[in-house]
Amino acid sequence: MASAFRDVAHLGFVELYTPDFEKSLWFFTELLAMREVGRDGDSAYLHAWDDYEHHTIKLTAHETSGVGRLGLRAASEEALQRRVAAIEAAGRGVGWHDGGPGMGKTYAFTDPDGHPMDIYFDSEWHVPTEESRPALKNQADRFPGRGVNARRLDHVNFLGKDVAENGRFVEEVLGGKPTEQIRLDNGMLSGQWFTFSNKSYDLVYSGDWTGSSGRLHHVAFATDTREDILKAADIFLENGIHIETGPHKHAIQQTFFLYVYEPGGNRIEFCNAGARLILAPDWKTIEWSEAERAKGQAWGMKTISTFHTHGTPPVELPAS
Amino acid sequence: MASAFRDVAHLGFVELYTPDFEKSLWFFTELLAMREVGRDGDSAYLHAWDDYEHHTIKLTAHETSGVGRLGLRAASEEALQRRVAAIEAAGRGVGWHDGGPGMGKTYAFTDPDGHPMDIYFDSEWHVPTEESRPALKNQADRFPGRGVNARRLDHVNFLGKDVAENGRFVEEVLGGKPTEQIRLDNGMLSGQWFTFSNKSYDLVYSGDWTGSSGRLHHVAFATDTREDILKAADIFLENGIHIETGPHKHAIQQTFFLYVYEPGGNRIEFCNAGARLILAPDWKTIEWSEAERAKGQAWGMKTISTFHTHGTPPVELPAS
Amino acid sequence: MASAFRDVAHLGFVELYTPDFEKSLWFFTELLAMREVGRDGDSAYLHAWDDYEHHTIKLTAHETSGVGRLGLRAASEEALQRRVAAIEAAGRGVGWHDGGPGMGKTYAFTDPDGHPMDIYFDSEWHVPTEESRPALKNQADRFPGRGVNARRLDHVNFLGKDVAENGRFVEEVLGGKPTEQIRLDNGMLSGQWFTFSNKSYDLVYSGDWTGSSGRLHHVAFATDTREDILKAADIFLENGIHIETGPHKHAIQQTFFLYVYEPGGNRIEFCNAGARLILAPDWKTIEWSEAERAKGQAWGMKTISTFHTHGTPPVELPAS
Amino acid sequence: MASAFRDVAHLGFVELYTPDFEKSLWFFTELLAMREVGRDGDSAYLHAWDDYEHHTIKLTAHETSGVGRLGLRAASEEALQRRVAAIEAAGRGVGWHDGGPGMGKTYAFTDPDGHPMDIYFDSEWHVPTEESRPALKNQADRFPGRGVNARRLDHVNFLGKDVAENGRFVEEVLGGKPTEQIRLDNGMLSGQWFTFSNKSYDLVYSGDWTGSSGRLHHVAFATDTREDILKAADIFLENGIHIETGPHKHAIQQTFFLYVYEPGGNRIEFCNAGARLILAPDWKTIEWSEAERAKGQAWGMKTISTFHTHGTPPVELPAS
Repeated sequence: MASAFRDVAHLGFVELYTPDFEKSLWFFTELLAMREVGRDGDSAYLHAWDDYEHHTIKLTAHETSGVGRLGLRAASEEALQRRVAAIEAAGRGVGWHDGGPGMGKTYAFTDPDGHPMDIYFDSEWHVPTEESRPALKNQADRFPGRGVNARRLDHVNFLGKDVAENGRFVEEVLGGKPTEQIRLDNGMLSGQWFTFSNKSYDLVYSGDWTGSSGRLHHVAFATDTREDILKAADIFLENGIHIETGPHKHAIQQTFFLYVYEPGGNRIEFCNAGARLILAPDWKTIEWSEAERAKGQAWGMKTISTFHTHGTPPVELPAS
Repeated sequence: MASAFRDVAHLGFVELYTPDFEKSLWFFTELLAMREVGRDGDSAYLHAWDDYEHHTIKLTAHETSGVGRLGLRAASEEALQRRVAAIEAAGRGVGWHDGGPGMGKTYAFTDPDGHPMDIYFDSEWHVPTEESRPALKNQADRFPGRGVNARRLDHVNFLGKDVAENGRFVEEVLGGKPTEQIRLDNGMLSGQWFTFSNKSYDLVYSGDWTGSSGRLHHVAFATDTREDILKAADIFLENGIHIETGPHKHAIQQTFFLYVYEPGGNRIEFCNAGARLILAPDWKTIEWSEAERAKGQAWGMKTISTFHTHGTPPVELPAS
Repeated sequence: MASAFRDVAHLGFVELYTPDFEKSLWFFTELLAMREVGRDGDSAYLHAWDDYEHHTIKLTAHETSGVGRLGLRAASEEALQRRVAAIEAAGRGVGWHDGGPGMGKTYAFTDPDGHPMDIYFDSEWHVPTEESRPALKNQADRFPGRGVNARRLDHVNFLGKDVAENGRFVEEVLGGKPTEQIRLDNGMLSGQWFTFSNKSYDLVYSGDWTGSSGRLHHVAFATDTREDILKAADIFLENGIHIETGPHKHAIQQTFFLYVYEPGGNRIEFCNAGARLILAPDWKTIEWSEAERAKGQAWGMKTISTFHTHGTPPVELPAS
Repeated sequence: MASAFRDVAHLGFVELYTPDFEKSLWFFTELLAMREVGRDGDSAYLHAWDDYEHHTIKLTAHETSGVGRLGLRAASEEALQRRVAAIEAAGRGVGWHDGGPGMGKTYAFTDPDGHPMDIYFDSEWHVPTEESRPALKNQADRFPGRGVNARRLDHVNFLGKDVAENGRFVEEVLGGKPTEQIRLDNGMLSGQWFTFSNKSYDLVYSGDWTGSSGRLHHVAFATDTREDILKAADIFLENGIHIETGPHKHAIQQTFFLYVYEPGGNRIEFCNAGARLILAPDWKTIEWSEAERAKGQAWGMKTISTFHTHGTPPVELPAS
């Protein structure tokens, strides 16, 4: 139903698992310039300077890499109630729980692939410390002026056993709009990009070739400019961070990108869409064929093979 | 009522009046790289490469400079009907009319200051010509690679006799959200920035010190990057276009800006907000005091005096 | 002898051969925004906006692609005489000739690989036309504000049968300084970068695996910024120009690069070194090993295979 | 005599005096990301990541702000001897002395205005520490990825009682080439820009309206890109550093600039010339008239009044 669109306002936070907590923490705080705003057992709460909520990332020590809960902020209390009703009707509800630091009442559910998700409206806004108070009062926190200066959570790209099934759930139950998608020659969707906002995408599903479920392709952070992404590449080079691919420009969504692996193994993207927005209320989903996809990225670079094989947590594949 | 928000999806087009049609046309087509997509009597329809609708600007030969109709695209047919009902209830309706090229049924009204406005849902999407077909199919038209490469209409800043009265109309009747505003020491609002989307603003009212009504402060076009704005300044320098102020960064809204006068006399802004978006559904309006405003722009440049005195059309002021 | 350094001030112009003159002309004038400043039989003289001499490129219709004469401007009349004497002593002189439009007396010679070269001091400075007069008088020509806005000739990269032999000639006879080089495990040089100035390189030799001589690897033009190179990639995409590789950053010399094939088949690079300069008068040549080279470009992209196989003119290789 | 050109290769280092040593040190190490490479009494030696010599700045605690010694590196031992002979012949020599950390034998002298200067050839190249070793071996030190990332010393702008007299000394005795200058209507030079290299300037003299001598207008550091300068402005805003003017583009030399006052009171510029170089060996000095100068900066911004009145150390002016 079309009217579900905008009931989810935007992605709120994402939990990342890391088997090397200290090094991952260094990556996010020293290289990405996020500020630690809290600790809670095995988890640190990290805040990107332009995010207005309590935290951007919950980083949790874990035996493997991978993704924990993904938070979605509802547009209002009424929108929250509508979405919870729809989730329950779809049989994917888990129930209300305490969302933890910065969160109020929060409803837990899962997507068809089993990724744990939270939807909530109550949210404690980020309060800068004396030291992190920004010079301009229309800004959440001080511009760090260090490393990559990750501005905010941009999008999450899940792997999913069945892209279409997950996509139907996002579209019908959560109100996401598919702005672009890849359809294979056999008719199956292998990737689908959803927006909850005027950004061209917020949540993406890519097919998990291993048949596993609940895995992560990547989490992406927005930078201010493409120059920031070029600088980021230099910073990762100097700091021994594995650059998987980029900087380059995707044909799909036209995002200028850089992909690296954080020390815990999760793929992290830095992205800049320039001034691209989806303003049309009746945007028609752009569909790419296998042949179009095979042409590679916008400026002709072939897609690197690990882009199709690396996901977290890693899975043991049967010898073929 | 909060639920009006999102009934207007975004600004559609704006009509500009020019007493020097040929030179203004050269400015928009040669320097800004808009494409002419139609002619109609004294008017040319001009399209910016990333706008998905039929046209971005209707440029009309006129005895003076100034602004004609401003188009607002509704989010749906239902949203259109809701807004028309509210406009009529507010006593500001004019009636349904033929919106002209690219438009379907269109409802005309005025803001309290008398600026003529259109609201509509039916819209003919831009179809590139053979020559202007983009390489990537998720793009409205070919990237021109010329001049300023104006990407899309970003916002319109009206002058208004009474900022607060116009603001109430935008907020209550059209569903705009005030993201930032300036309040003078005497309690009056002297500027108010409204968004209909996740952009930080789409429509702005500044006080008209002359007591006139229906005038324009400026029309702004988005560029891809801040570098584009630096390049734009060089292009305007080479082409004898008056640069009023900038490039610099506003404290309010943090927009990186450049203001010029097009040959017809209207002030045109080129703006880039980097990755700034208003994602919070419960954003609290940021209010700036006179003292804060007096500090000048973000990096300390004092606001140029013509910024407070130049509006279009020009008005004859009684000798004081 | 060290004192030869600085007798050659900089590269002056380069002649390019094209089997598709009209399309190559379109590429240089429309996409790179060079101005045609003269015609002469089968040749057009093209000027990049920041080059102070008469022309940057002599584009000549020819049965194949490839490179014609390369011009080197001497630092003074005395420097010219010293270099001519050294060239003659090396047995590579051809003799004085009329250098053509914009040139005065010119001495012709060849490098050991047979590439035809000119050295000269007399040079007619570029005079802008009424239409191309720049707004700032410390600039050669108006900033075009179109396409790639190629700023000036940056460097020429020749292929050579014997890199070391050509390199010795450039160093000992012309006074070039090798700033970086690649030495294969077998001890042979496979690439050598020479500067005549404070730029990090002006003239490069790469090994020609085909055993041919007199061929071209690429000609490079400087852009103002790295953003210009990203924009260039979009412009080439929109105009159907083959992008071979990039944008990316070389490890060697750290140049931010984009390589395309112009319609005549010659590889053209757009490069930006940021603020990199070689200021040290006693710079020590940086040598890269085969193993270091195998790591790919600065940010990890593997060097594309055609980079090692495409040269102009094309040569017929015996079936192996 | 023309042949003196190139005997000085480039500026080496500059000593800055500060009455607030700790805060100035914070400015250079934390905001500009220079590394401290040594201490010596009241002085700290600071290194910018792309400078190949031992240090870029010698920062010295002092009762006032202002400038100490300026180092010039000769192109060779022979060039050094030639320049020392010329300096002695001009009666401005002081004598050989121990140049301190990183320096070998050094010849001290003064310009006609009394600024203390050093010329030397022996120079200890910067050796990165284990921690500051760059990923690419053609780079002096690791890219810091912090703050402004000041790349290298770009130029020094002295104030001088008599611009022409100082200029003659630089041109005739040191071999500098005047690339641009301002001539007042009364025939006097009020500013002169000299290069020792292919940079468009290295050393500048501006008239000191106070009639004092030995004072500083500013010291400038190169950044990689113009975007770096925009980011720098945000960083200075966040850190309470006084931004005097900019970012904007000078008409003279076309430098993109930002001027701030470091905590000790000295004016510091961040500059980016894009790809601008002076390659012509016979460059003709560009002269600007008072009327041209009055037009302001390249894009029309009026020159801020403090630009003409602030110099260091401050001087007490007689009441007028």
